[in-house]
Amino acid sequence: MMTTDILITDGCLLPEPGTDRVTERGYVAIRGGRIAALGDMADLGPVRAREVVDAGGAVVMPGLVNCHCHAAMTLFRGLADDLALGEWLGEHIFPAESRHVNPEMVYWCSRLAAAEMLLSGTTLVADGYFFADAAARAFGATGLRAVAAQGVIDFPAPGVPDPADNVRVAARFLDAWHLRDRLVTPAVFAHSPYTCAPETLQRAKQEAGRRGRLFFIHTAETEGEPALIQDRRGASPIRHLDALGLLDPLTVCVHCVWVDEEDIAILVRRGARAVLCPQSHLKLASGIAPLAALRAQGVVVGLGTDSAASNNSLDMFREMDVCAKVQKAWTGDPVAVPAKSILRMATGEGAEVLGFGGCGVLRPGAPADVILVDRNSPHLTPFYGPDLLVYGTRGSDVRTVIVDGRPVVRDGRLLTTDLDAVMARVRALAARAG
Amino acid sequence: MMTTDILITDGCLLPEPGTDRVTERGYVAIRGGRIAALGDMADLGPVRAREVVDAGGAVVMPGLVNCHCHAAMTLFRGLADDLALGEWLGEHIFPAESRHVNPEMVYWCSRLAAAEMLLSGTTLVADGYFFADAAARAFGATGLRAVAAQGVIDFPAPGVPDPADNVRVAARFLDAWHLRDRLVTPAVFAHSPYTCAPETLQRAKQEAGRRGRLFFIHTAETEGEPALIQDRRGASPIRHLDALGLLDPLTVCVHCVWVDEEDIAILVRRGARAVLCPQSHLKLASGIAPLAALRAQGVVVGLGTDSAASNNSLDMFREMDVCAKVQKAWTGDPVAVPAKSILRMATGEGAEVLGFGGCGVLRPGAPADVILVDRNSPHLTPFYGPDLLVYGTRGSDVRTVIVDGRPVVRDGRLLTTDLDAVMARVRALAARAG
Repeated sequence: MMTTDILITDGCLLPEPGTDRVTERGYVAIRGGRIAALGDMADLGPVRAREVVDAGGAVVMPGLVNCHCHAAMTLFRGLADDLALGEWLGEHIFPAESRHVNPEMVYWCSRLAAAEMLLSGTTLVADGYFFADAAARAFGATGLRAVAAQGVIDFPAPGVPDPADNVRVAARFLDAWHLRDRLVTPAVFAHSPYTCAPETLQRAKQEAGRRGRLFFIHTAETEGEPALIQDRRGASPIRHLDALGLLDPLTVCVHCVWVDEEDIAILVRRGARAVLCPQSHLKLASGIAPLAALRAQGVVVGLGTDSAASNNSLDMFREMDVCAKVQKAWTGDPVAVPAKSILRMATGEGAEVLGFGGCGVLRPGAPADVILVDRNSPHLTPFYGPDLLVYGTRGSDVRTVIVDGRPVVRDGRLLTTDLDAVMARVRALAARAG
Repeated sequence: MMTTDILITDGCLLPEPGTDRVTERGYVAIRGGRIAALGDMADLGPVRAREVVDAGGAVVMPGLVNCHCHAAMTLFRGLADDLALGEWLGEHIFPAESRHVNPEMVYWCSRLAAAEMLLSGTTLVADGYFFADAAARAFGATGLRAVAAQGVIDFPAPGVPDPADNVRVAARFLDAWHLRDRLVTPAVFAHSPYTCAPETLQRAKQEAGRRGRLFFIHTAETEGEPALIQDRRGASPIRHLDALGLLDPLTVCVHCVWVDEEDIAILVRRGARAVLCPQSHLKLASGIAPLAALRAQGVVVGLGTDSAASNNSLDMFREMDVCAKVQKAWTGDPVAVPAKSILRMATGEGAEVLGFGGCGVLRPGAPADVILVDRNSPHLTPFYGPDLLVYGTRGSDVRTVIVDGRPVVRDGRLLTTDLDAVMARVRALAARAG
């Protein structure tokens, strides 16, 4: 007899979203934080389960992977909309950050973000911000798997008044969070090639690389970015980073809107990863990334929501939908990036970007990050197939979320958090910021 | 003492979305299907109300106006995704329609659509399909205000096996539904300039016009459309329609993706209305409509979801969000069409497109089509202002819907419909179509 911690029964299994593997009536057994077994209900033998979750026909799939977020910026959600990136950053976000960002703000606003993400089916996030220690604590406390990255920038920043300390602070964070929480992995986030000098980038990358940690950087977000890069070593931001020796499989280039064929070839050659934030790119009028070309050449690509200040949602279902649709109109080709590819990017491929090769799929031995999506509602009726997860599903359709084998959302309610208290805290902070 | 049917208390009032008029703690009194009074809670005198709805801080605003839908096509939601318009229509949708469309299908699938729309805050829809009588009955039964239009096309169509009857069938529908249901207004929907001959269009317009009813037509949806128009009278679809004398304030041109400056000038000169369906335009790779130019020249523009088969959602909140964001990237101008304009298009301006000048606003005397949007959730926290209704709100945030002074959704539950029964009917139909 099989013994399990959690047995999910009667679900429509999507073990690897984006493939044709679907089990219409299946089960998933979870033990010790990992998938122990899965298959057709007809093949389910006797089981002793501590907890049985009756999926009742819901879709059972890997949790979504949000490859780019600044969680604490939920405080600035909707504070300044309808602006271009330069004005938005320079006149609104940077000033607000200099006044309002402190460890308490980062902790509570990241808890709010973590709650929003879990409730909408995200089980793994890559986050970058200042006071990353506070963000990391927030993710762990909420029960969200996270890569938490400390920001590095050559300007006075929250918690790093002297930019000369920026890489040192990041390195200390990497060490402090080494194996500290099984859900949280530390990393470094260099803001961009135009806000960090070449030697800052190289030192930050070195600190991350020698510990085997990820190095993130905003890259090629706007058309005007190359002109902003001081001491530029190549024609494009990607070529600049490559000339500095920064590109390898542990480097994640976030945005990649303005990359050309040569940039893409460099990413492929170096094995560097790309993350797109389609809604943020639209909202800040940055442009639309050449996703079909990136994937066709073999770049591993993830999707991210970016912050709530430039989206204004952290719902990865929404992100998938917009990404899929916009690529069709942009390329004039309705099959350029089909729903199946988008589902992969938001699950297994996104996990691969973040170095969690085993996440984003349901298979024996994989970490048990699992979500149940209710299909029993008018907007998901009829349900001919998983493409509707991209083109019609909302985060609010997620009913159950399990992270690392632990239920954190049940019946649409977050178990780890006093939501009213967190929202009250953030509203109090917002009353000062707004 | 004021007597009312319904008194909504303690709401954040947006009487005219898109304007700066916001009352942070307000009331709305409804009597005889109309707004009787509204204002600040501080000014609320003694009231005798049959029913008090405590908004508890929720946003109270006019219901959303979906200016273009084919409700019955919920049956084909997700049946064929990731295809171009021509192949999608010719190889999937038209064949499926010829096999599966009948009055029973139209009734039940339109009931499903009406449920989905009410639950996501739409209180007025303009629908076009065959067997419009069945659609009209479905809208009335669900409690959704609707313009139901009978389709006209020069091919054998569901319910109209001989195209020679197409205009006659539409005229009979206009007469049969004249003042039959206070929620439902009949109209005519000519499929397009490339599927209807000039004389068909003129006869259909004449039947609608002499009864003071709306005449809808899909126009300028794809770049290749002009080449498809037989007996073309102008360089573009709009010029073709204008040469036929079809454009006036009772004509609604749906799509308007491929319109140039001269087309826009014609729309303005004739007072014809435009409706955009941004997500459908993206998903079918049709393109992106020049919304900023249309509005700058003074065209009255509404938003529509199009059918669930090409979207795949009927959620107008999603439609607003995508429309706003895509226009920014398309024009490279993040302020080209701000959230405030989008909110107007989805409420008052959309109502104006459909000839319901009094709907889409909350003011004394206006029809009481009112929705309450819950802000007390992580993804809407903090809430600095109404722009977040565009950039972060989901249909599932709608808690209460009142149409024509009658509550049809309470606490997120639809009062007029046995949803399980409707979904079961549609699933049974889908089992044959899929």
